[in-house]
Amino acid sequence: MSTMMPGTNENAQKEAASKAKKGGLEGIVAATTALSKVEGTAGRLIYRGYNIHDLARTTSFEEIAYLLWFGHLPNVTELADLKQKLAAERTMPEAVTRVLSALPVNAEPMDALRTAASAWGAATIKGKPTIEQTIALTARFPLFLAAFERLRQGQEVLESRPELGHAANYLYLLTGKQPEEQHVKALDAYLVLLADHGMNASTFTARVVASTESDIVSATVAAIGALKGPLHGGAPSKVLDMLQAIGTVDNAESWLRNAMAHGERLMGFGHRVYKTEDPRAEELRDLARLADPQEFVLARRVEELALALLEEQKPGRRLYTNVEFYSAVLLASVGLPGDLFTPTFAVSRAAGWTAHILEQIGNNRLIRPEADYTGSTEERFVPLNAR
Amino acid sequence: MSTMMPGTNENAQKEAASKAKKGGLEGIVAATTALSKVEGTAGRLIYRGYNIHDLARTTSFEEIAYLLWFGHLPNVTELADLKQKLAAERTMPEAVTRVLSALPVNAEPMDALRTAASAWGAATIKGKPTIEQTIALTARFPLFLAAFERLRQGQEVLESRPELGHAANYLYLLTGKQPEEQHVKALDAYLVLLADHGMNASTFTARVVASTESDIVSATVAAIGALKGPLHGGAPSKVLDMLQAIGTVDNAESWLRNAMAHGERLMGFGHRVYKTEDPRAEELRDLARLADPQEFVLARRVEELALALLEEQKPGRRLYTNVEFYSAVLLASVGLPGDLFTPTFAVSRAAGWTAHILEQIGNNRLIRPEADYTGSTEERFVPLNAR
Repeated sequence: MSTMMPGTNENAQKEAASKAKKGGLEGIVAATTALSKVEGTAGRLIYRGYNIHDLARTTSFEEIAYLLWFGHLPNVTELADLKQKLAAERTMPEAVTRVLSALPVNAEPMDALRTAASAWGAATIKGKPTIEQTIALTARFPLFLAAFERLRQGQEVLESRPELGHAANYLYLLTGKQPEEQHVKALDAYLVLLADHGMNASTFTARVVASTESDIVSATVAAIGALKGPLHGGAPSKVLDMLQAIGTVDNAESWLRNAMAHGERLMGFGHRVYKTEDPRAEELRDLARLADPQEFVLARRVEELALALLEEQKPGRRLYTNVEFYSAVLLASVGLPGDLFTPTFAVSRAAGWTAHILEQIGNNRLIRPEADYTGSTEERFVPLNAR
Repeated sequence: MSTMMPGTNENAQKEAASKAKKGGLEGIVAATTALSKVEGTAGRLIYRGYNIHDLARTTSFEEIAYLLWFGHLPNVTELADLKQKLAAERTMPEAVTRVLSALPVNAEPMDALRTAASAWGAATIKGKPTIEQTIALTARFPLFLAAFERLRQGQEVLESRPELGHAANYLYLLTGKQPEEQHVKALDAYLVLLADHGMNASTFTARVVASTESDIVSATVAAIGALKGPLHGGAPSKVLDMLQAIGTVDNAESWLRNAMAHGERLMGFGHRVYKTEDPRAEELRDLARLADPQEFVLARRVEELALALLEEQKPGRRLYTNVEFYSAVLLASVGLPGDLFTPTFAVSRAAGWTAHILEQIGNNRLIRPEADYTGSTEERFVPLNAR
């Protein structure tokens, strides 16, 4: 393992060194992975060799979970087997329902998800991470969220329907209604697109925790906490707030110009790694159009205007549409409230987190970096007159 | 910030490069900190310039928390003020008691602590980390643990006593009895000694989560999960298991020789950073002697024999007594059950975690390293016959 980015020529080495100086471990390789690769400059994302565009258009979340966990796409029998196992795990221990019922209705859903997952682990998980635990935990993310959503609405918590897939069952548990086909398709593809993304902050968090030989729930709960942060997964609902504030196509340009003139950040543009369009944004755009053609019109117009204004006012900054922009549009179109956007990101990323946890412990070394001490180095003595 | 360990001469650079090749971010500087410095070769630990030996013998946990959070040791007024604030926060919201009551009695206390902290955050915390939240969260660690301990024993959960310090109140909440003076003194010094330790795995986890601009509870809950791992904080009770298996001084040498002949790891020796005696071990040894002079005799004899045998059979490996060995002896002597050892480590480290979280967000950059992709790079296509 190298401490620098891969690169054979001098320019690549210089670029890596320049990144490393920025801090935040930028350009530092923290682990090896066979799960996914993010090529920021090319705008390319692959899961185990498969291009994300191909996967988004042809596979289900269950197939992607299988691909990440087992290393190859499932055949018909393997897929049926995984679906059966996921369906069998769609149960809520009484303890978790009681824990969710104890939380106030104004709790943030990410906090409820973190607490429910933690309680489920406390009640059921012992020992080192296993593939069985991986399936059991991933299966339950939609249940935890839907139960909290129903409880805070004063509604009865529903039982899962075994004949539904992961995406469809999630929508059913939230609403109690048979979900529309184009909503299921859009949400399922969303879950495929967000399932893994190299060494992002939440995945890295999960690997650091797993590297201590802690359990799968401790590592996943930690990742949920990291994903909650606005600099990582925690801001998609702000895209929706922006679109609602803009309101109409006619209002878009003046609203955006005014926001930029006041130094406000436009939500849904720019990414630390991608310096071109995020390949997921392209797929999410098509899916959002599919999920709700009417709502799509405003979003698309705002995107076009925002990109033009960013290029006009911040030339050379390479700010492109990121994954948050159309995630928000898509998730709103399938009927989710804004504060479930980031938790639904977690429903997808659970597959990647657990795959990374298993990969980490398969060839483990404790992840323990060092710190540069900048505090006092004089020998200070405790003043005896203080006590 | 440099990606290598500080060091001006060629040897230091070579050592840093050699460490980095081992993976696990060894030798990589992940952040700057003014909180504590670990000098592994010298066996020296300082908090903000103060030597740990001086602090362990002269200060209380509350003074150390103040030092870490505010940058200087408190004067009499400042200390009284912090103690008053901590005492005022010693309340359990009804929601957290209900959450702990919902957990099975055989849940691991680290999982119960993780869940209680998460639930407390869900019920009460909004927005970015603040010093007020830091105090409120640190104050409650003993309450969460003692409540779980009392509930699993079928006993009534007790109210805190405002006139007691952090260590004494923790012991009172566990037992319902006025704690013995030498137990309070030993536990208080233990809490001082374990409060911070550079960029260890749980502290690093907390900083990664905080770097996403997530909340203080998300970051702390993540750290609890990391501390749970046996490669970090999760094994001190095994030291006690070993001492109990050995049983008597006369049995010690044959037991240890037999264990080593069977390739078993002796618990409580060796550390990734310290290549000499851990300075905390020296203090903990004296405190363990103070807390229970009788129990100490066996522990001391086992330590001496183990060090001699390790030097005899693994010469040059520089395996010394680590912090776990006498932590276990000390915590058992003050009356704690083995599965509360690591959670009590968390009671102490809460001060360091929260100080690091505040430090991280004070000069933040998202911590997001890269991964070396080792998976398939051929362009794979989804087989259409699979579905």
